[in-house]
Amino acid sequence: MEIEFKPIGFVQTDVATVPRHWSISDVEGMIVIDKIYTDGLKYIKIGENIIVIFHFHQSKEFDLHHLIQKPPHRNEKLGVFSSCSPVRPNPIGMSVLEVSGIEGNVIHVKGLDMVDGTPILDIKPMAGLKRDSA
Amino acid sequence: MEIEFKPIGFVQTDVATVPRHWSISDVEGMIVIDKIYTDGLKYIKIGENIIVIFHFHQSKEFDLHHLIQKPPHRNEKLGVFSSCSPVRPNPIGMSVLEVSGIEGNVIHVKGLDMVDGTPILDIKPMAGLKRDSA
Repeated sequence: MEIEFKPIGFVQTDVATVPRHWSISDVEGMIVIDKIYTDGLKYIKIGENIIVIFHFHQSKEFDLHHLIQKPPHRNEKLGVFSSCSPVRPNPIGMSVLEVSGIEGNVIHVKGLDMVDGTPILDIKPMAGLKRDSA
Repeated sequence: MEIEFKPIGFVQTDVATVPRHWSISDVEGMIVIDKIYTDGLKYIKIGENIIVIFHFHQSKEFDLHHLIQKPPHRNEKLGVFSSCSPVRPNPIGMSVLEVSGIEGNVIHVKGLDMVDGTPILDIKPMAGLKRDSA
């Protein structure tokens, strides 16, 4: 049973090295959405946080040795489903980005932890969630 | 450019009708993960919230008329990327569930808004997010 998705757009940024997690990033860039979907962006507001679902397109292939991993910034092991590692059974990423502008099919964002060219799969509202700034 | 994923597991619940959103659900059920991934669940704790990424496998096919939708419980139109509608370019869902127990490859959860048999694509920690209980 395979499930197929197509990118709805791609990340564009000049920054070559991005932080490991959106919660510690102030990298700016753009999410350029396929023009056929422009109307779907109409109600996104400047200053809002959006949830961006993407494809970890550059991560190495997952094998069962990756079920337990030690995150680079932590001194403990974690199960892959308790970690944000890009090496996972389905290489799906999720980031929370701040919208700094919208121009047609382009969303200007702050907080990138994805590299230039990352394929975007979906954008969702924060409904029911907020940043944990603790 | 197509991206292929395989389910890592499936939702199991006896409840026939689920609420429209996890934030207003107290439906209980299980997430049954493929046994090969059991070790990846090792560090998930009872009482914790987890982010569950899934496939809206029963939603109707998206067409461009769905770029603007009126959610059933709201009196306004929204762009698909500002809404939680299951009818979206890539039918990917995201729910936040409370872990009420773990037994091997089975996670007992509360807060389901997915139907029995929903294919699960990924489980992630809440890193940087919390429930907005306002």
